[in-house]
Amino acid sequence: MFFASDNTGPVHPDVMAALAAANTGYAPGYGADALMDEVRERIRTVFEAPEAAVYLVATGTAANSLALATLSDPWSTVFCSPVAHIQEDECNAPEFFSGGAKLTLVPGGDRMTPEALRATIAGEETRGVHGPQRGPVSITNVTERGTVYSASDVAALCAVAREFDLPVHLDGARFANALVATNATPAEMTWRAGVDALSFGGTKNGCMGVEAVVFFDPKQAWEFELRRKRGAHLFSKHRYLSAQMAAYVTDDLWLRLARKANDGAVRLARGLKAAGAGFEWEPQANMLFPSFPRRLHKALHEAGAQYYVWEGDLDGSDPEEALTARLVCDWSVSDESIDSFLDVLRS
Amino acid sequence: MFFASDNTGPVHPDVMAALAAANTGYAPGYGADALMDEVRERIRTVFEAPEAAVYLVATGTAANSLALATLSDPWSTVFCSPVAHIQEDECNAPEFFSGGAKLTLVPGGDRMTPEALRATIAGEETRGVHGPQRGPVSITNVTERGTVYSASDVAALCAVAREFDLPVHLDGARFANALVATNATPAEMTWRAGVDALSFGGTKNGCMGVEAVVFFDPKQAWEFELRRKRGAHLFSKHRYLSAQMAAYVTDDLWLRLARKANDGAVRLARGLKAAGAGFEWEPQANMLFPSFPRRLHKALHEAGAQYYVWEGDLDGSDPEEALTARLVCDWSVSDESIDSFLDVLRS
Amino acid sequence: MFFASDNTGPVHPDVMAALAAANTGYAPGYGADALMDEVRERIRTVFEAPEAAVYLVATGTAANSLALATLSDPWSTVFCSPVAHIQEDECNAPEFFSGGAKLTLVPGGDRMTPEALRATIAGEETRGVHGPQRGPVSITNVTERGTVYSASDVAALCAVAREFDLPVHLDGARFANALVATNATPAEMTWRAGVDALSFGGTKNGCMGVEAVVFFDPKQAWEFELRRKRGAHLFSKHRYLSAQMAAYVTDDLWLRLARKANDGAVRLARGLKAAGAGFEWEPQANMLFPSFPRRLHKALHEAGAQYYVWEGDLDGSDPEEALTARLVCDWSVSDESIDSFLDVLRS
Amino acid sequence: MFFASDNTGPVHPDVMAALAAANTGYAPGYGADALMDEVRERIRTVFEAPEAAVYLVATGTAANSLALATLSDPWSTVFCSPVAHIQEDECNAPEFFSGGAKLTLVPGGDRMTPEALRATIAGEETRGVHGPQRGPVSITNVTERGTVYSASDVAALCAVAREFDLPVHLDGARFANALVATNATPAEMTWRAGVDALSFGGTKNGCMGVEAVVFFDPKQAWEFELRRKRGAHLFSKHRYLSAQMAAYVTDDLWLRLARKANDGAVRLARGLKAAGAGFEWEPQANMLFPSFPRRLHKALHEAGAQYYVWEGDLDGSDPEEALTARLVCDWSVSDESIDSFLDVLRS
Repeated sequence: MFFASDNTGPVHPDVMAALAAANTGYAPGYGADALMDEVRERIRTVFEAPEAAVYLVATGTAANSLALATLSDPWSTVFCSPVAHIQEDECNAPEFFSGGAKLTLVPGGDRMTPEALRATIAGEETRGVHGPQRGPVSITNVTERGTVYSASDVAALCAVAREFDLPVHLDGARFANALVATNATPAEMTWRAGVDALSFGGTKNGCMGVEAVVFFDPKQAWEFELRRKRGAHLFSKHRYLSAQMAAYVTDDLWLRLARKANDGAVRLARGLKAAGAGFEWEPQANMLFPSFPRRLHKALHEAGAQYYVWEGDLDGSDPEEALTARLVCDWSVSDESIDSFLDVLRS
Repeated sequence: MFFASDNTGPVHPDVMAALAAANTGYAPGYGADALMDEVRERIRTVFEAPEAAVYLVATGTAANSLALATLSDPWSTVFCSPVAHIQEDECNAPEFFSGGAKLTLVPGGDRMTPEALRATIAGEETRGVHGPQRGPVSITNVTERGTVYSASDVAALCAVAREFDLPVHLDGARFANALVATNATPAEMTWRAGVDALSFGGTKNGCMGVEAVVFFDPKQAWEFELRRKRGAHLFSKHRYLSAQMAAYVTDDLWLRLARKANDGAVRLARGLKAAGAGFEWEPQANMLFPSFPRRLHKALHEAGAQYYVWEGDLDGSDPEEALTARLVCDWSVSDESIDSFLDVLRS
Repeated sequence: MFFASDNTGPVHPDVMAALAAANTGYAPGYGADALMDEVRERIRTVFEAPEAAVYLVATGTAANSLALATLSDPWSTVFCSPVAHIQEDECNAPEFFSGGAKLTLVPGGDRMTPEALRATIAGEETRGVHGPQRGPVSITNVTERGTVYSASDVAALCAVAREFDLPVHLDGARFANALVATNATPAEMTWRAGVDALSFGGTKNGCMGVEAVVFFDPKQAWEFELRRKRGAHLFSKHRYLSAQMAAYVTDDLWLRLARKANDGAVRLARGLKAAGAGFEWEPQANMLFPSFPRRLHKALHEAGAQYYVWEGDLDGSDPEEALTARLVCDWSVSDESIDSFLDVLRS
Repeated sequence: MFFASDNTGPVHPDVMAALAAANTGYAPGYGADALMDEVRERIRTVFEAPEAAVYLVATGTAANSLALATLSDPWSTVFCSPVAHIQEDECNAPEFFSGGAKLTLVPGGDRMTPEALRATIAGEETRGVHGPQRGPVSITNVTERGTVYSASDVAALCAVAREFDLPVHLDGARFANALVATNATPAEMTWRAGVDALSFGGTKNGCMGVEAVVFFDPKQAWEFELRRKRGAHLFSKHRYLSAQMAAYVTDDLWLRLARKANDGAVRLARGLKAAGAGFEWEPQANMLFPSFPRRLHKALHEAGAQYYVWEGDLDGSDPEEALTARLVCDWSVSDESIDSFLDVLRS
């Protein structure tokens, strides 16, 4: 009953096997390994983007921060959701890597609407040098509340960005889960919709620690390479990043793992709803925020279930007060684990 | 005949096995894994430093930059050798992470002398706010030219730093090789000598990608943790960093691997000298810079030897002109490989 | 009829005279001039703060950014109003000088309420290293909408900051106008209320270009001096900053000029109200935001009145649509000018 | 007998008069004042550069740091003399404004030679992303040791920069003194020689606090404007910067004042040489570094002479030991003052 995060589970055996297979003989360092050539080609094929610049880093925050820094200026502002990972969970890394760019929060909930985005960008009026300059739009898909933008949702947001001639970054730490949830192709969800740069997550979905950054237009590739090195994110033994990513995008492993995680969430959500749990955000991928009485939370904790109480205090007194949980399924979730969880809930 | 770098060889099987062993069940992320508790304790024991703060990152540049940023102010200057990795090979990462600190180069060759260090620090006179303020001293051991400071050499440099009340950082990307070369204990080479913070390298010596940062006085531990997160260097699936480091410091693996690398370098150096090669820097650890005629370099390249021509142009015309090679032995070097190299040289 | 800004008017003759008087003989540079000693003492006396550290810079953005950078860490966030100058009008200078700190906007209008501030700080939950760390609170008085916090309002906000052990910065670009409007003493409005650092504006109120930064506790004085120099804001011919500020705080010039400006605003507001203008924010100092029909704006512009149309488009079609003006009175405003303005409005 | 610095003397009456004349009526802020239009046109005329972008800031460090930041990237390195103001006297401001660029010191004395510059740039080898990238060359004229580059010296250095396709910045804090010393025209000393951006000093030569930054190619003008604002160096009451600079470049005031200062230095140097003083650097502009016995330094200090003992300790024991003074003449120096100084020396 491990639902704390999609970074607490193990690495998929195929990824481990790829690391072991890569561990033979000598390989040039710093991204010049032959495996990286493979990775680049596979990702270009998967995204139908033969010109794309493709890079690997080890953390999602690095992918986001380096990509955004490349798309922005220190005097510009990034438009994002108030619950974006770059706003809430990166300890000012975007500000750091960009040299002091601002984040402007687009009012709303889990998902930005085109209207709110347009109004926010327009409101960041251009008054010469006085205010921050308008910079990139950053979209998170899957959102931090477990909901999903369809490819056409993304396209609508990109269209707004284009009205103002602004580039678009997609934080795809859970990109595979978003694709599986929407049946969009990688191209549809990204460059065909108008996305310029993608953080393509592997770590949360079965890898050990690897994220790709994909620039669909390679014009800023060299700048990114310098930023990656300067940020201490260029691996010397790079082949072990390559190996993970190569395995990840081989035989649709990434999509199969995401499907497993999403299916687990569907099963979990169904059981939770049947047990009367409420949902502020309709679960669409592998992350759920159900609300149910404190006494059930307590029973689950006693039974060893691991997850975060998202809203409310487990130690409060009223046994019937509804508290919200955050439950995350990763690729390794099992029906047994889900059913054990639901059993406690129903008991 | 692979002597290009100690980051082009494979990961040691024990480290791979530790990764595989760690890949079971669930583990809290972001450094809260139980393996990290083990790592911390083992490193404290190895260094006889029960209070030390111990952190893991994945690259040497991250270890150096984050440690130095923690020890310095944006308006200060770091004292280091002109050939230090932080000066020559990190694409301004120390400047970036410190928020714009300067590096002041202590004149001299591969090793700083206490006299040169003292003169340089003194010369960075204190004229109120006008010049950069004196900041940490950074020592690299093994140096970037394959020579080594003894523990008492380090102590002498630290004593100079203390005269000016400045902290000391030790870039120990090849720390194990330095210890093996000098028979110093970890404590003697670091805090007993006066070192405040250590970059304790694993990647170049058999690991996949892990370096520890050790603060012997934990007073800046929390600041370091924030800097690591903000620098996007905090791993979510942290257990896989822990596993590498745990294996590395178990049963003296780190020292055994360094000894193997250093022994290879001794064998190689002996053969090179016998063959008439000259050495600007006497090899003391696992890195050699022999000079020998161009025609031998050509023969080696034709025979498939891999290494960098450090000084001179392989494509020049005079077959007898001496060019300098950089040869690095890692843990995986074999006597056969060394002897094949020497055979070509002698033929 | 010049109401565009309080930085478009002339310098007060007393300040000009002080500059001329200072322009004799030799004076040490960089703040070591004897006039600066006078300034420091006068400001300490005015604020009843004998230990205060006092510094001069030439722009309000420098004062704010350097003060906030001194009070914050690069990984922290500054709490301020969505309409604060530091948020809207400084082109990311606070982010730049702080090394990448964030600004967290306290929901609400022109003035922060203690409740909103508390909720916002509390909502920036402390989740270890993941989110930005809580940093200083920055209050603007006079606000950017022409309203004023009383000394007890400021104290209430400072009390909230103290609940979370956070320091407080007061952006007093129009500090004199706020004092005149509230009859508070300088001490009551600042350190007695709990303010740690003040940007004490001179430029908008009759000076040429000078702002003091006052730290009521001098413990960070040296850090500020280094930041000021590194920010290129330490004047070599510093005596000409000192001379302005010395004149400004002599014989209550600063309060007399602010009173004149505020009085002008009262006269203007009275006339505007009589003419039927509406006010979203009740004018309390020297800045007004009246709404009146487009046809009157057009008449005023034709008559040569200078001010910004704050909301709405002057070139729209409906002559009766209400547009909002921003009108600012500075020390040099005249009754004639105001009455001419009102005459046009009434005609 | 005031020879401490060219920033300790008074402002020239013409500049004061211009400030007074500008202090009438209303003027738009932030550089939109009509006086700035005049300044721009005059500077373009003076430099025979009708397209040049011209900006004003108040300090030399701001001019240098903002210009260099505009010409560099955070991952690049600036090539300069070891005694450059940007290296020794700006408390890491260039590093701060550039976001962490490095300064690479060209070995040598007061003046860089083309050979040393070429060797240094070449030595900063291009090894992909590992080292800092080659960035702008910064030349100081008058140098910090009182010597001068001729226009053809500057052209020779620029030619080296062009070999590597690098831009050139000229720190002209004492630009007028350099022109007077060499009889070069402003154009010859700058863009005709190959200079891209100039810090054109006013403060040290009779102004109160104003420096122009001139970009001979305006392609980075907007970026500079944003950097200036973000650096808090855009003045709201900008007309008072304009007024100073307008007076400065009217009727050759700037050249006349520099000539007066340089002439004073000639008189002083002649007397010093006659009195037996030695000179490590031959004085060529308005700054001298004579060496003479301690007892004479003591006599001068007792007589009230003000200057810095540059090398050596005034309080040492040997009355005959030679100490080096730094003597600076500004526009306000008088023959009487010089002769009094020399009289003491000769007595």
